[in-house]
Amino acid sequence: MGDLNESALLQRIFPRLAAVSGVVVGPGDDAAVIHAPDGRTVLSIDTLVEDHDFRLHRASGFVTTGYDVGWKAAAQNLSDINAMGAQPTSLVVSLTLPKKTPVAWVEDLADGFSAAILALGAEGCGIVGGDLGAGPVVVVTAAVTGSLDGRKPVLRSGAQPGDVIALAGTVGRAAAGLALLEANLAVEALEETSVHLIHLQCRPEPPLAAGPAAGRAGVHAMIDISDGLLRDANRVAAASGVAIDLDPVVLERLADPLRHAAQLLRTDPLSWVLGGGEDYGLLASFDQTVTLPAGFIAVGSVSAGAPRVRCGSLAPAATGWDHFAD
Amino acid sequence: MGDLNESALLQRIFPRLAAVSGVVVGPGDDAAVIHAPDGRTVLSIDTLVEDHDFRLHRASGFVTTGYDVGWKAAAQNLSDINAMGAQPTSLVVSLTLPKKTPVAWVEDLADGFSAAILALGAEGCGIVGGDLGAGPVVVVTAAVTGSLDGRKPVLRSGAQPGDVIALAGTVGRAAAGLALLEANLAVEALEETSVHLIHLQCRPEPPLAAGPAAGRAGVHAMIDISDGLLRDANRVAAASGVAIDLDPVVLERLADPLRHAAQLLRTDPLSWVLGGGEDYGLLASFDQTVTLPAGFIAVGSVSAGAPRVRCGSLAPAATGWDHFAD
Repeated sequence: MGDLNESALLQRIFPRLAAVSGVVVGPGDDAAVIHAPDGRTVLSIDTLVEDHDFRLHRASGFVTTGYDVGWKAAAQNLSDINAMGAQPTSLVVSLTLPKKTPVAWVEDLADGFSAAILALGAEGCGIVGGDLGAGPVVVVTAAVTGSLDGRKPVLRSGAQPGDVIALAGTVGRAAAGLALLEANLAVEALEETSVHLIHLQCRPEPPLAAGPAAGRAGVHAMIDISDGLLRDANRVAAASGVAIDLDPVVLERLADPLRHAAQLLRTDPLSWVLGGGEDYGLLASFDQTVTLPAGFIAVGSVSAGAPRVRCGSLAPAATGWDHFAD
Repeated sequence: MGDLNESALLQRIFPRLAAVSGVVVGPGDDAAVIHAPDGRTVLSIDTLVEDHDFRLHRASGFVTTGYDVGWKAAAQNLSDINAMGAQPTSLVVSLTLPKKTPVAWVEDLADGFSAAILALGAEGCGIVGGDLGAGPVVVVTAAVTGSLDGRKPVLRSGAQPGDVIALAGTVGRAAAGLALLEANLAVEALEETSVHLIHLQCRPEPPLAAGPAAGRAGVHAMIDISDGLLRDANRVAAASGVAIDLDPVVLERLADPLRHAAQLLRTDPLSWVLGGGEDYGLLASFDQTVTLPAGFIAVGSVSAGAPRVRCGSLAPAATGWDHFAD
């Protein structure tokens, strides 16, 4: 980036961003102005840090591209809006970059952001602004806004005894992909299902149609599974003051697509199902009389009692990711 | 922070944040939900990076506190909303912290955020959410929202020939304070005015009443001076397609409070006035028939012609800050 100043770099990035339409003020001024049609705006922020949330280069030769990082930053932010039952409306992005970062890497990152927005079905959501600065490692922070289109926000706290617990999207795949990467196996030597797990670690696919659909169906509570099924289910149980039972038969079935990778790494695929985050699926609590919206499957039930999550006879050690855990 | 996990750290921080009132959903869920009373939301994002935007420890013994960093992160974000003529409504904050960061430092940072919000007059603005992760240096990113209360957003592009260019807040003081810090003088040995300049570098005071007041007065164009008076004036000139003349007599007067520090460092105080950012004053272009709102002083005029900024006979070298300049 040595030959480009901040303005010149921004001029290279802007044209690559998902087209911004329907905003009051787009990129280029002190701030953007977006529509908030129902008089409310949903708002969240999330960060990816090099060497903590991704590694640019691994001993195996595997390279995380700018495109991957842009895609993942978009996906994890869009997922927070999804979890409220809302539709994403805009992103603002702050990039901290080492001075040695190639301009092409930054352009690739912008392409990844735009591609994720379109591929995941958030067409209406443009990148309306940003900030650019230097630092020792790559740090990508995005803030995202969303619209509830007149509906109630879906909180973690609304689960009720008798509810059905349902899952949209996948669990454990990104975690399995990460484990494969950390094993430093040569990616070329892996079979297709393992390569796909690595792909999903780099470019997760939150089910963005499912959140608003759940909202329209009157879902009682919802969370996105970013820190692991057990840990995030525990958050719903704690916020709602209920007990949650996950069906061990369903959990075993969710582990099926992971068994090949688990054999390769000699580990239990259930640990990925229960403890793996970053697939950005949705865990939702529906009234038992509701027909589950497309994309959801039943995975458990809610009962009265002290907040806790049980998985039948399974006694998992994995409880999810903590940035500051030892 | 070794003894606290992410949840425990958040529990220590939440109670220290400026009270959140009048939001639909506050901190603690997947995303917040704020009001957007006029059906629009103003949105911006800004980042501070350790060793680039601040230094925790200097050879002189000077220490940048968590409180300072929190204050400055709040101030620079609130200033972007101010520059649109809007009122801040909420902040979301993402913290990247080395694992060795003391918990007390993070609590101090939360206190600085809250104190700046209150002291700068953004009472209605709460911290409604955030993200916490680990990294090699401290990185603080905030995204900020604002409300225009039914008014038009104030852009950089509306300056018209015949307009008066006006300034709210100060220029050059934070830059002078930074120069004093970088000279590594013992702060205890400095006289009061120099200590105050350093204070303003650490805890800038954007004039948050001035932006909405300018909006109500029908201001034509506005920008916050975050990269230097000349550079930001040039942005208004370029966006508006006009020429701007700054009054050299007024510029000399703006340099007066900086002369003592300039003598000490054997430099020209005008370079701070013209090139120094981070005071977060406002540069605005008003119709010449408008009575300037409280807090604004006239500093120049707009004429037709190729976009450029002139300062009479002054030929300044300083053109403002660029993160990636050599």
